[in-house]
Amino acid sequence: MNIAILGTGSVGQTLAEKFISQGHTVIIGTRNVEDTLAKTGPTSFSEWQSKNTAAHLKTFNEATKEAEIIVNALNGNATLTVFQALDAANLEKKIVIDLSNPLDFSKGFPPSLLEGLNNTNSLGEAIQQIHPLAHVVKTLNTMWCGFMLAPNLIQGGSHINFLCGNDQKSKETVAQLLITFGWTNETLLDLGDITNARGTEGYLLLWTRIYAATKNGAFNLQLVK
Amino acid sequence: MNIAILGTGSVGQTLAEKFISQGHTVIIGTRNVEDTLAKTGPTSFSEWQSKNTAAHLKTFNEATKEAEIIVNALNGNATLTVFQALDAANLEKKIVIDLSNPLDFSKGFPPSLLEGLNNTNSLGEAIQQIHPLAHVVKTLNTMWCGFMLAPNLIQGGSHINFLCGNDQKSKETVAQLLITFGWTNETLLDLGDITNARGTEGYLLLWTRIYAATKNGAFNLQLVK
Repeated sequence: MNIAILGTGSVGQTLAEKFISQGHTVIIGTRNVEDTLAKTGPTSFSEWQSKNTAAHLKTFNEATKEAEIIVNALNGNATLTVFQALDAANLEKKIVIDLSNPLDFSKGFPPSLLEGLNNTNSLGEAIQQIHPLAHVVKTLNTMWCGFMLAPNLIQGGSHINFLCGNDQKSKETVAQLLITFGWTNETLLDLGDITNARGTEGYLLLWTRIYAATKNGAFNLQLVK
Repeated sequence: MNIAILGTGSVGQTLAEKFISQGHTVIIGTRNVEDTLAKTGPTSFSEWQSKNTAAHLKTFNEATKEAEIIVNALNGNATLTVFQALDAANLEKKIVIDLSNPLDFSKGFPPSLLEGLNNTNSLGEAIQQIHPLAHVVKTLNTMWCGFMLAPNLIQGGSHINFLCGNDQKSKETVAQLLITFGWTNETLLDLGDITNARGTEGYLLLWTRIYAATKNGAFNLQLVK
């Protein structure tokens, strides 16, 4: 499949490596290709791309136009500006996997959630509102990025990943993709429509505090009953 | 110990039975003793008290005046009104165990959190703000009440309970009480000061949705790493 990843940071890079290893075509979207490539240094995108030459870098609109599936791996506070600027036709009937969180670090750590994107709204819903013809599926946003694509790193993969979205078929397609990473029908929990992103994003208020208390972000949840 | 439980509902009753069985003196606080006793029927307080005669029923102020430890088992939307009316002297230097959640069901299920008591504030903090000389400890609010006092009902008790509060000694006292219920040093996680109630209360946005999706409230979380 042609997969566009929006965001050139470490989450986007990790996803790109995985998708490429699975044989997908990966186009990474950025605001300005020249600006992104102009940055140098050991953690720069250029440095990463020199080792991952199969990853194409294009503008957000070019990347989404060519893609069959779009993954939002942008920072939460950059997400809506980018989606507002995207040509709606490029997203029509396409799956948008949103794994971002509306974290507001402006007052330090632990973050709160961005004003207007918490409790009675969420980032996942806001993307869906901007692009009503896209099929937004929220998933993977409740854990450290190392586990997203490799759940088997801990507990034999027996821990939970939520998903939600308005289109059942899109959720099934995403679930199939997640299963190729090691998630299973038992560890995936469909919460229902995209308003349930209020729950998985709201949990970040607790996640960040567990992280602070345990000094370890490499944890996830298991539901026990 | 003399323990005051604020709230005559099922959570308060369950707590009262447990504390009485452990040899504590339990005073249940209510707005108006006569009104509470006047209600009849199989789920009424009177009916419950007829089988639990060791539980004393008094006004909120009387109950807290006599108590060494106060437990808030009121509904979230009733909590602040009750605490605003409480004589501050009755709470001075006393532990207030807050296990309530600021759930707003006014727009149906799943609830949101009450306006002004989410994301950048919490019910636990609001109680602490009203009574700065009390030692508020937030705990047990992230699970079905059946597990609060009997964690061993599932997974040999191996699932998590958070606590937070500003006074370290009070948290230690509460932890000792929780250990008598079956919690352990391994299953109790101290998140830090009372602002961390934003995390454990915020998680209710996810808890209610897991409950809706699985049709089972008798679950809790295990942290896996």
